[in-house]
Amino acid sequence: MNFHGANIYEYTGRIIDFSSNINPLGVPESFKKMLLNSLDEFTRYPDINYRALKEDIADYIGLKDSSHVVPGNGAVELLYKAIGKSGKKKVIGLAPTFSEYSRAASFYHMDFISAAAFDEELQQVDIDYIAGSADRDSVVVICNPNNPTGTLVTKSQMVRLAGRLQEKGSRLIIDEAFMEFTPDYPANSMISELQNYSNVLVVKAATKFFGMPGIRLGYAVCQDSIWLNDIKEGLEPWNVNTAAVIAGRSVFKDKEYIRRSQEWIEEERKYLYDSLSRIEKIKVYKSSANFHLVKLLDERTDAWKLKEKLLQHRILIRTPEGFEGLNGQYARLAVKDRESNEMLIKYL
Amino acid sequence: MNFHGANIYEYTGRIIDFSSNINPLGVPESFKKMLLNSLDEFTRYPDINYRALKEDIADYIGLKDSSHVVPGNGAVELLYKAIGKSGKKKVIGLAPTFSEYSRAASFYHMDFISAAAFDEELQQVDIDYIAGSADRDSVVVICNPNNPTGTLVTKSQMVRLAGRLQEKGSRLIIDEAFMEFTPDYPANSMISELQNYSNVLVVKAATKFFGMPGIRLGYAVCQDSIWLNDIKEGLEPWNVNTAAVIAGRSVFKDKEYIRRSQEWIEEERKYLYDSLSRIEKIKVYKSSANFHLVKLLDERTDAWKLKEKLLQHRILIRTPEGFEGLNGQYARLAVKDRESNEMLIKYL
Repeated sequence: MNFHGANIYEYTGRIIDFSSNINPLGVPESFKKMLLNSLDEFTRYPDINYRALKEDIADYIGLKDSSHVVPGNGAVELLYKAIGKSGKKKVIGLAPTFSEYSRAASFYHMDFISAAAFDEELQQVDIDYIAGSADRDSVVVICNPNNPTGTLVTKSQMVRLAGRLQEKGSRLIIDEAFMEFTPDYPANSMISELQNYSNVLVVKAATKFFGMPGIRLGYAVCQDSIWLNDIKEGLEPWNVNTAAVIAGRSVFKDKEYIRRSQEWIEEERKYLYDSLSRIEKIKVYKSSANFHLVKLLDERTDAWKLKEKLLQHRILIRTPEGFEGLNGQYARLAVKDRESNEMLIKYL
Repeated sequence: MNFHGANIYEYTGRIIDFSSNINPLGVPESFKKMLLNSLDEFTRYPDINYRALKEDIADYIGLKDSSHVVPGNGAVELLYKAIGKSGKKKVIGLAPTFSEYSRAASFYHMDFISAAAFDEELQQVDIDYIAGSADRDSVVVICNPNNPTGTLVTKSQMVRLAGRLQEKGSRLIIDEAFMEFTPDYPANSMISELQNYSNVLVVKAATKFFGMPGIRLGYAVCQDSIWLNDIKEGLEPWNVNTAAVIAGRSVFKDKEYIRRSQEWIEEERKYLYDSLSRIEKIKVYKSSANFHLVKLLDERTDAWKLKEKLLQHRILIRTPEGFEGLNGQYARLAVKDRESNEMLIKYL
């Protein structure tokens, strides 16, 4: 079973890929330019301490002290280690959510508890319910905004959750892989609150927002230097490659790319939501991320049948395997550029 | 403590780096060309199964079945997992050797036994001594040619070791990171013998010989699909980045780069050896790799003092920390291009 749904390498020819949540603005020019000027850096090992990279990340997220940053070979590597090194016995996550959290739990022989914490419209997460489920043996993992529902936990709610978990001796890992796509970013990022909550660790993927998942760059941020060091010791030396270091040194400063991306997501998320809303037999959930979860209301069809039909038009969608708690009536659709979005709507 | 010796990022300005063992021919043009033509591939996730990459690797090393190949984010990641997933309780390694094997052993709570298996000239490894030390709870790790001594175990010796370990129920991991630099490559690589020894796993670094350690690409090859699968399951998804995939698709077919590199290493290894041999107060060990271990015979100096002196001439050498069994009289010198080698000799 492929836990990550569609794999575009299984298809030949040009495919419009609505299954992966990537910025359609593509690779930032700032990165291309620096890469071309830095090809000879591949001849060296990266700095084993990644000092310059950590400072660039700290600058970008408004952190004074770059020693609280640990870069990784993509966010997933850091999520695994953060869960495994949390010192806890059980992982509490949302349902549905990204499948890697429960895979990480089972990898480290920890229990995984799926909390039924969403309202019916998948717009709210019941913070009190989650806090009530946790104890001193628990680490809670929240994907914010959540994949695949697009649900956003606001900063004030997250602060409340962090505080209640702190009182209980529980830890909290927040996966902010899609946070830059949310309205008013960074209004709901918890990074600015970390100094008050040493039980909280934030993991971010550097590459999704900047259109480059192939780069493999993520980072973890936390005030608890013991937790952070345990994660660091679990990583192999030189885990972050030179192309990722070059990305970190270029894209975070690319204000133009960031501005254009925010304009695009605001406009196209609304366009895709409104267009999907007008389609009978599809229920679309409001999202704060760069994808929409949809429910197929016609029970004679399902996500896999829809996928096959759309593939005839070279369109690939994300079927629900790997998202626990979602049956075959659900599919996830990435927000893409206008032309692709129109194509999707046309064939739906 | 920095287990990997010198870190060039601690120095400013231009440094001739004799501390890292990298092909001075630099980044292959074939890679640069393909990278420039493939920049848009960063916008996708790499193939989670790395099918095309595995086939390119299999072609390069003359393996029929690419399912016996597991690619990794550098060779070190694979060495760690291969040791950790060997199912054994103790690791037997050479002394001196690359420090990551004993770090991996301690990471997985395994004992590490340093076998005193070298002759005085560091030219031979006593295969029978190593085989005699192993039992069914052992995994032997041999770096071939060995870092930092440059000692080559020939294929016939290695076949004998593999057979004796097979009889005993022990496993053998061979780190062939520097194998392409040896005379008559691939004469002494064990990859061609793997079909007879399912207890043997070979790890190779793709990037050292091709001058690009920053790329992070390594691979493990083994006939035992259970061992290999255990390693694969210990790796995070998309562990190999897109730049590494592009490297794998370009450099292995770059016959011109391979030929020029082999010519360079034959010539410059001999030149550096002969030149070092003529220096009084330095003993140089014969090497089959792209570096020479030297012993400082003047007891009033040591490797750190020499390093400081050479740094005044912008030359960086590898001091012996991290190589167990080497005292401060030893240093490792990479074979570089003629101009750099002459500079080193001049200031020594």
